[in-house]
Amino acid sequence: MLKFDFFRMNDISSTDYQKVYDQKNEVYEKFHSSDMVGWTNHIDISEVERMIHLSEQVKKESQCLVVIGIGGSFLGSYAVLKMLSNYFNDDSFPIIYAGTTLSSKYMSELLDYLKDIDFSVNVISKSGTTMETMMTYQMIKQLMAEKYDEKEQQKRIIVTTDQDQGILRQEVNQMGYQSFEIPNNIGGRYSIMTPAHLLPLAFNVDIKKLIDGYYQGEQFREEAFQYAVVRKCLANSGKWIENYCVYEESLYYFTEWLKQLFGETEGKNGQGIFPVSMVHTRDLHSLGQFIQQGRKIVFETFIEVEHSNKLLYNGQDLHTINGIVLESVRKAHFSGDVACLKIGLDYLNEVSIGQLLYFFMLSAAFSGYLFQVEPFDQPGVEVYKKEIKENLGVLSY
Amino acid sequence: MLKFDFFRMNDISSTDYQKVYDQKNEVYEKFHSSDMVGWTNHIDISEVERMIHLSEQVKKESQCLVVIGIGGSFLGSYAVLKMLSNYFNDDSFPIIYAGTTLSSKYMSELLDYLKDIDFSVNVISKSGTTMETMMTYQMIKQLMAEKYDEKEQQKRIIVTTDQDQGILRQEVNQMGYQSFEIPNNIGGRYSIMTPAHLLPLAFNVDIKKLIDGYYQGEQFREEAFQYAVVRKCLANSGKWIENYCVYEESLYYFTEWLKQLFGETEGKNGQGIFPVSMVHTRDLHSLGQFIQQGRKIVFETFIEVEHSNKLLYNGQDLHTINGIVLESVRKAHFSGDVACLKIGLDYLNEVSIGQLLYFFMLSAAFSGYLFQVEPFDQPGVEVYKKEIKENLGVLSY
Repeated sequence: MLKFDFFRMNDISSTDYQKVYDQKNEVYEKFHSSDMVGWTNHIDISEVERMIHLSEQVKKESQCLVVIGIGGSFLGSYAVLKMLSNYFNDDSFPIIYAGTTLSSKYMSELLDYLKDIDFSVNVISKSGTTMETMMTYQMIKQLMAEKYDEKEQQKRIIVTTDQDQGILRQEVNQMGYQSFEIPNNIGGRYSIMTPAHLLPLAFNVDIKKLIDGYYQGEQFREEAFQYAVVRKCLANSGKWIENYCVYEESLYYFTEWLKQLFGETEGKNGQGIFPVSMVHTRDLHSLGQFIQQGRKIVFETFIEVEHSNKLLYNGQDLHTINGIVLESVRKAHFSGDVACLKIGLDYLNEVSIGQLLYFFMLSAAFSGYLFQVEPFDQPGVEVYKKEIKENLGVLSY
Repeated sequence: MLKFDFFRMNDISSTDYQKVYDQKNEVYEKFHSSDMVGWTNHIDISEVERMIHLSEQVKKESQCLVVIGIGGSFLGSYAVLKMLSNYFNDDSFPIIYAGTTLSSKYMSELLDYLKDIDFSVNVISKSGTTMETMMTYQMIKQLMAEKYDEKEQQKRIIVTTDQDQGILRQEVNQMGYQSFEIPNNIGGRYSIMTPAHLLPLAFNVDIKKLIDGYYQGEQFREEAFQYAVVRKCLANSGKWIENYCVYEESLYYFTEWLKQLFGETEGKNGQGIFPVSMVHTRDLHSLGQFIQQGRKIVFETFIEVEHSNKLLYNGQDLHTINGIVLESVRKAHFSGDVACLKIGLDYLNEVSIGQLLYFFMLSAAFSGYLFQVEPFDQPGVEVYKKEIKENLGVLSY
């Protein structure tokens, strides 16, 4: 279950807060009339069963799954996987992520590694035109053609893409690959409950519980709106950077997911809060100085897990000590005039993670409307894509 | 060899630039009269030999080295190690970093892992009072006491600390542990060329070459000052976030090192530039939208490696494609009124990394003086430390 504490701050007057809060009906109306909120609908359970079944099959035939995707087809599953994995002695089924880079070092070392093992591939792109994804997919398919006959390749390639359109869907129809669909009414950064993320997660995570938690998130709608209001007020008062603070390194990629979610939703029209993150206590020894005494443009959102592994240090529970440190840091930063919000989870498990995901997605969408931008597009991404296309010239992928 | 391109921007007039640049003599004077620039002195080569020799001994007796340190006793060696390691099929000697967190999950999983293998420890703390370091050290020593007799423990513990003072130096004198010294005239974030980092690196990196490259960095003093001047001018014009952009995931921790170096050096007195980083092309699909069209408070510094692994995609060199993408992104962001500086390396190897480290340290120190703060202290860190001490009460470490 989630708990919230948004009001340890000096920066906002209750009048300011009320003024922004009063836009609630307007925001909810816009939200409900959007055609991009498919992620609030319930997911087809038979598709979920098919993912689980397929993951069990792949595990029998392969030593790892290579997931090829980037952006909205990468961060969600990667973040959840990391949150639930062990630091050492990890006995989960190996998932390798590729296509998130054009690094020839990464790619050549990966191909070298895959040469000698049996693997399957899940390629994920809604449009089938994502540059990094399609280039990586081609290079890995080339290796598969060297290793496996056609029948074997067919068994080892799983495609997640648009229902009808695009080159990947064509390939599915021609080659008979197994495939899943990304609905039209869900954008990349809001796609955590689509097969783009659920299929890679099915290999190691109880996705049914994750889905349960996700839909429970609807109960935090009021808090999601409050969080968006507080953030908008802080931005109005010159706090233009939000620092997500976690106390567990395994949550780092969850903060990366948050950065994408909020940064891409709000960062338009000269607006938005720049999202950054810190892993405590590590980064207190790095950016802690800046937060405490540097330029006053930062506010913080602490994400705290109430219960964790039991371990005694000098007869005291180490996680309790970690919690005391967290509160001490909040107090110290607050004394340095830094607003310190907090969102708490009881346990770090599938259910609470599901709740957290939904809470933040809801809040990000509301926030977009408060910033008076469209929460579900990303027109700025087209600018560099166009530039790349012009400069790469005839190179096709 | 390093190459620089600092002037793709609209934000600074040449008059503004000259005005800041004219403080050069003053800054150099302050720099040279500081008693914290021991990191510009030459390092004792016999100590370097001792580190290399010791690393060879440890490799024979242990399956891994546990490095216990945080902040300035962690990020430098970790960053360089990552920069030079393979993504897959890594055949380097395993180095495990601990003490960067109070996570009971991390700590209990680590202890569980170490139970069944032979390991050595390098504990690093200048003062011997760093909370996370000393707590972790105690817990790991307890495990060692269960596994090894006293003579064996003595062989497996290596201490890096102050020459004369502190609890760790006392332990060395009592127990006869092997030890190294962190000089008094070098602060944590400027300590990359001390045993705090060179010893852990000696296990996998040619530290003599790294040292060579480092001292070659002195030739880039003028550029280091120029970089500091440009950044200061950008900050004056409202660009309060610097985004370090790399095109290779293995450089991510180097950007973390940069964040510590610049954030902790400048972030005082309500001053400073907030350092963030992006790994391209991955994060173009995340924060790219914000950079292009969001709030105009960001400028970017691209770190580019000219030569990398050879790999062909459709008959074209993949690294060349990555370079074209980098330039396209610079052009696109520049068209969105984002200043785009660039620092280039020919190859990613010990020598060029050494040059890069020195260049940035020099520039950070100059920058502190330009922001009219003391580059080598971190008074804000004491605020939360004091708060923690009060709240943790009698708990001793």
